[in-house]
Amino acid sequence: MKIDILTLFPEMFDIFNHSIIGRAIDKGILEIKATNIRNFAENKHKNVDDYPYGGGAGMLMSPQPIVSTIKHIKENNRGKVIYLGPRGKTFNQDLAKELAKEDELVFLCGHYEGIDERARKYIDEEISLGDFVLTGGEMACIPVIDSICRLVSGVLSSNVSYEDESFYSGVLEYPQYTRPEVFEDMKVPAVLLSGHHENIRKWRRYQSLKITEKHRPDLYKKITLSKEDKKILKTFE
Amino acid sequence: MKIDILTLFPEMFDIFNHSIIGRAIDKGILEIKATNIRNFAENKHKNVDDYPYGGGAGMLMSPQPIVSTIKHIKENNRGKVIYLGPRGKTFNQDLAKELAKEDELVFLCGHYEGIDERARKYIDEEISLGDFVLTGGEMACIPVIDSICRLVSGVLSSNVSYEDESFYSGVLEYPQYTRPEVFEDMKVPAVLLSGHHENIRKWRRYQSLKITEKHRPDLYKKITLSKEDKKILKTFE
Repeated sequence: MKIDILTLFPEMFDIFNHSIIGRAIDKGILEIKATNIRNFAENKHKNVDDYPYGGGAGMLMSPQPIVSTIKHIKENNRGKVIYLGPRGKTFNQDLAKELAKEDELVFLCGHYEGIDERARKYIDEEISLGDFVLTGGEMACIPVIDSICRLVSGVLSSNVSYEDESFYSGVLEYPQYTRPEVFEDMKVPAVLLSGHHENIRKWRRYQSLKITEKHRPDLYKKITLSKEDKKILKTFE
Repeated sequence: MKIDILTLFPEMFDIFNHSIIGRAIDKGILEIKATNIRNFAENKHKNVDDYPYGGGAGMLMSPQPIVSTIKHIKENNRGKVIYLGPRGKTFNQDLAKELAKEDELVFLCGHYEGIDERARKYIDEEISLGDFVLTGGEMACIPVIDSICRLVSGVLSSNVSYEDESFYSGVLEYPQYTRPEVFEDMKVPAVLLSGHHENIRKWRRYQSLKITEKHRPDLYKKITLSKEDKKILKTFE
């Protein structure tokens, strides 16, 4: 997957040189490039922001540098142009899965008080990270790209199973334990040491359901409990 | 505000050296420090992860290095320990405002398939960025810290008004324009050039309400329209 990021702070995306995403870039599975919008400002001082018409605090990103950068990037990236902003659909795992199918994507990060409304003509889709305010779109772009990229084939090692993950099937993940068997007087649940795979599977499903019910009643309400789920709930209660 | 981040990838937090947060650190308003959990692993190879009991794909973060790091950090930071994870409350602007009042905070970033359940004994609060999966808690920690820090007094320049921001009062921000007056045949709305402050204020309120209604009907339903709001809606329609 090829990703272009349009930003005033390309250095911020050095974060993708590390860990899982960094390794996928090294392997050539992902190509992530950040381009500085400032380089496309067609004025002597390379200004990218200006005062808002009608008054108000803070500075706004001017339309020309943004639009010129988008036009330049589109010569080599045919992906849709996604703007990180508050009017967008709230990002979630379904949207991550959908975008992970694309071969190319372009992300535009606003900064300061936002972008001139007219630059929106060149934006295909707006995504919001959530109902909170950030210093810049960069801070939203990072988790969104991370979440999409980890679903691209080959990025995670093949033995990682998505099925058990939180949100994959609408439930939270069950509690997990690793060595030692006893840590500060706290023991690993006996069933996990039993080697009885069927019992482990049922215990984990039970824990997933109960944790979801407790912490995310909104998600729990949406689950269609299977015959087995109902049996599991009865057995453990 | 003093923030400690516990992570396996401290380099990722170099992102806070830039832009608004970076300047606030230089001014001494913010102190953000990332500590490597691996430094506290009490085994020869400094291992921090291990296989999950009961089987399953991927690796889990062992309890000892996490707990030792928390204990060490708590000697100099009395803030609550916040874990970024899926069971947490979904982060939003209200939570950002609440946490911005604290003097000290500690953030724990899980990686791989998560943390040993027993490490949770040392966690005070869990926050979720949203309903999607990330490669690590770092990716969630970054926007959460950014959103909290920008609300700390002195971080944003004093002339920036929070009141006009998206989500501040439950509505999205109005469209903004800057120079030039005409960009690619698109004109700045005449009212913004009029210099008539009262008309500009009303036009902006109308735009905020209509944009919220269109893009976030869920938020729009929660707004209690004032007498003036109703008058504005009538006038412009």
